[in-house]
Amino acid sequence: MRILSGMRPTGRLHIGHLSVLKNWVRLQEENDCFYFISDWHALTTAYDDTSELKENIRSMLLDWLGAGLDPERSTIFVQSHVKEHAELHLLFSMITPLSWLERVPTYKDQIQQLGKEGKDISTYGFLGYPLLMTADILIYRADGVPVGEDQLPHLEFCREVARRFNYLYKTELFPEPQALLAEVAMLPGVDGRKMSKSYHNDIPMSASPEEVFEKVRMMVTDPARIHKTDPGHPEICLVHRYHEIYNGEEVEETRVSCRGGRIGCVACKKRLAEKINAFLEPVRERRAYWTARPNYLEEILTAGAAKARAAARQTMAMVREAMGV
Amino acid sequence: MRILSGMRPTGRLHIGHLSVLKNWVRLQEENDCFYFISDWHALTTAYDDTSELKENIRSMLLDWLGAGLDPERSTIFVQSHVKEHAELHLLFSMITPLSWLERVPTYKDQIQQLGKEGKDISTYGFLGYPLLMTADILIYRADGVPVGEDQLPHLEFCREVARRFNYLYKTELFPEPQALLAEVAMLPGVDGRKMSKSYHNDIPMSASPEEVFEKVRMMVTDPARIHKTDPGHPEICLVHRYHEIYNGEEVEETRVSCRGGRIGCVACKKRLAEKINAFLEPVRERRAYWTARPNYLEEILTAGAAKARAAARQTMAMVREAMGV
Ligand code: SF4
Ligand code: SF4
Repeated sequence: MRILSGMRPTGRLHIGHLSVLKNWVRLQEENDCFYFISDWHALTTAYDDTSELKENIRSMLLDWLGAGLDPERSTIFVQSHVKEHAELHLLFSMITPLSWLERVPTYKDQIQQLGKEGKDISTYGFLGYPLLMTADILIYRADGVPVGEDQLPHLEFCREVARRFNYLYKTELFPEPQALLAEVAMLPGVDGRKMSKSYHNDIPMSASPEEVFEKVRMMVTDPARIHKTDPGHPEICLVHRYHEIYNGEEVEETRVSCRGGRIGCVACKKRLAEKINAFLEPVRERRAYWTARPNYLEEILTAGAAKARAAARQTMAMVREAMGV
Repeated sequence: MRILSGMRPTGRLHIGHLSVLKNWVRLQEENDCFYFISDWHALTTAYDDTSELKENIRSMLLDWLGAGLDPERSTIFVQSHVKEHAELHLLFSMITPLSWLERVPTYKDQIQQLGKEGKDISTYGFLGYPLLMTADILIYRADGVPVGEDQLPHLEFCREVARRFNYLYKTELFPEPQALLAEVAMLPGVDGRKMSKSYHNDIPMSASPEEVFEKVRMMVTDPARIHKTDPGHPEICLVHRYHEIYNGEEVEETRVSCRGGRIGCVACKKRLAEKINAFLEPVRERRAYWTARPNYLEEILTAGAAKARAAARQTMAMVREAMGV
C-alpha cells in the first residue's frame, strides 16, 4: 500500500506525537510510505513569523529519526522541496467549489479560535488549506492516510475532490484514499490541559532524563492526599493515567498501593519517570546519532525530495494528460 | 523596463486583439518583454472543457507571431511551463486576506454573468484568479504591464499584494508595477455588438481576403439608405467607423461622398475590405511563414519557457530567502 502522512514543523515534538510516530514506524515495515514535513502548511497560520521555520524542520526531522523512521525504507521529505504540490493544488483549485471549502467543519472554528488569540488568519491560503492537503495526498496517489479522528473531515474532502476530478475528466487516475485510524495514546499535559509546547506542559521527545523527572514532578495528583498514608484515588490522578500507558507491568500494583496508602506520590512519580526514561532511551540514542551527523540529515531530505519528486512528476504527467493541459 | 503581459488562449484572435498586439510589438523594441499564454487562467472559466486548449495555444502563438512579436527580442512562453508561478501563487495565498479577493470589482459580476449562461464558476480557483495574475507579474518583478482600463483593478490588487509582501518581510523585493495604458482601437463586431468569436461577428486576424470581404459585407450601415443616391449618415454607420481606423487617407472623402449620395454602400464596403486586407497582408505572410515551420513553434515555446524559468527561479530564491522558507 502507498501511504502518506505529514506534520507541520511547529517545533519540538512531545511524547504524544511519539505514539503517532510509532504507528508510522510500524507502517513502514510493509508499505511504501511517504512522510513529509509540511512547511507550506505551517505558513497558513504563521506566515508573519517564520524565523524558526528552518530550525523547526531540522528538529522535527531529528524527532522523526529518533522515533525510528528509517530513511532507507520511507521517503522522508520537505513539502516545499516538491513544487509539484503547488501545481496540483492550483489545478485542483479550478475544479473545487468554494462552498466545499467554506463548509469544512474546522474552518470557521479555527478562524474564531485564532481570532481570540489576536491572530488574523482569514487569508485565501488558510481557506484553501484542505485543498493543499488534498494535493499532498493525491499527488502520490496514496491508498491510505494515517490520521486522527479530527482529520477525518479533511480526508473526506480529499476523497470528494478525487471523485470530482475522476468524474470531470473521465478517468480513474485518483484512488480514494482510506483513513488509517490508529489507537494512539493522547495523554494530557502535566497540568491536565491538552499537551502542548506552548503551554509548557509537554514532555518533549528530546527531553533529558532530568527534564523528564522535573516534568513528572509537576504532575497534578489526587489533591485529597496530604500524608503518604492517606488512601488515594488513582482514578482521578494524572500520574496514574500515565502509569497505564508507560508502566503496564506495575500499574495494577501501584493502584492498589495508592488506594491502601502504602505508596507516596513522590515515589510513585519516581517510578513513572524511570519508565518514561526507559521508553525514551532508544529515541534519545537515535536522536544523538543523527544530531552528530548533520550532513546526513541534509542528504536524507535531498534524497527524499528526489524520490518524492519522481513520483509526483509521474502523477502530474497523467493529470495534465487527463485535463488536456 | 521589464514588461509583462499575457492572454488567455480562448481561440483565434481578431483584429481588435491585433491593436493590442501592435502595442506589444512596439514595446519589445526598447524593453525586456515577457509575453505569456495563460493556459492556467483559461481553466478558471473552462475547466470542464479543455478539448481545444492545445490547439488554441498553437493558434494564439501563430497570431502573436503574425502580429510581429519577435521571439529573438521577447520572451514568449506558456504559463503552465513555468511551475514557479504556481509556487509563488501558493505563497502569496498565505498572506492575502480573503476579503481583498472578494471585493475585486469584477468578481461578483463575472460569477453572475456566467451564471446566467448556465456556467458555474464559483470555484476556489476563480476567486483566486487575480492572485494568480499577481504571481504572474511579480515573479518577473515587472515594472510595467500593458493593460486595458478594465484590468486596472487587478493591477491595483497586484500592487497591494506587492506592498504587503514587502512590508511583512521587511524587503523591497517587489516593485509596484505600473499600468501601461495604450490607445487601443476597440471596434465593435460587424453586427454592432462587442466583437467576439462566440458571436461570429469578428474579423479574425487569420481571415483570408475572401473572409474579410464577406465579414465587411455583413456590416450594418445607415438603414435609411435604400438607393445609392440617398444621402447617407456616416456618423451612425459602422463601416464609417472602420474607415476611421483602417482607411485614414480616404475617410474624409468617403464621408463627404456618402453624405452627398455619391457612393453606394457596396462600393464603400469594398474600399474598406481592401484596406483591411492590405493591413492584414503582412500578418498573413508572417503567419504562413510560421505555420509552415511547426518545429520552430515548439522551439520558441521551449526556449521562452527556459528563459522565463531562469528569471522566475531567481525571484523565487529571493522570495524564499525573504520569507525564511
Ligand atoms: S500515589 Fe501515585 S497514583 Fe496515587 S495519588 Fe499519588 S501519584 Fe497519584
Ligand atoms: S456609404 Fe459607406 S459610410 Fe455611407 S452608409 Fe454606406 S457604408 Fe456607411
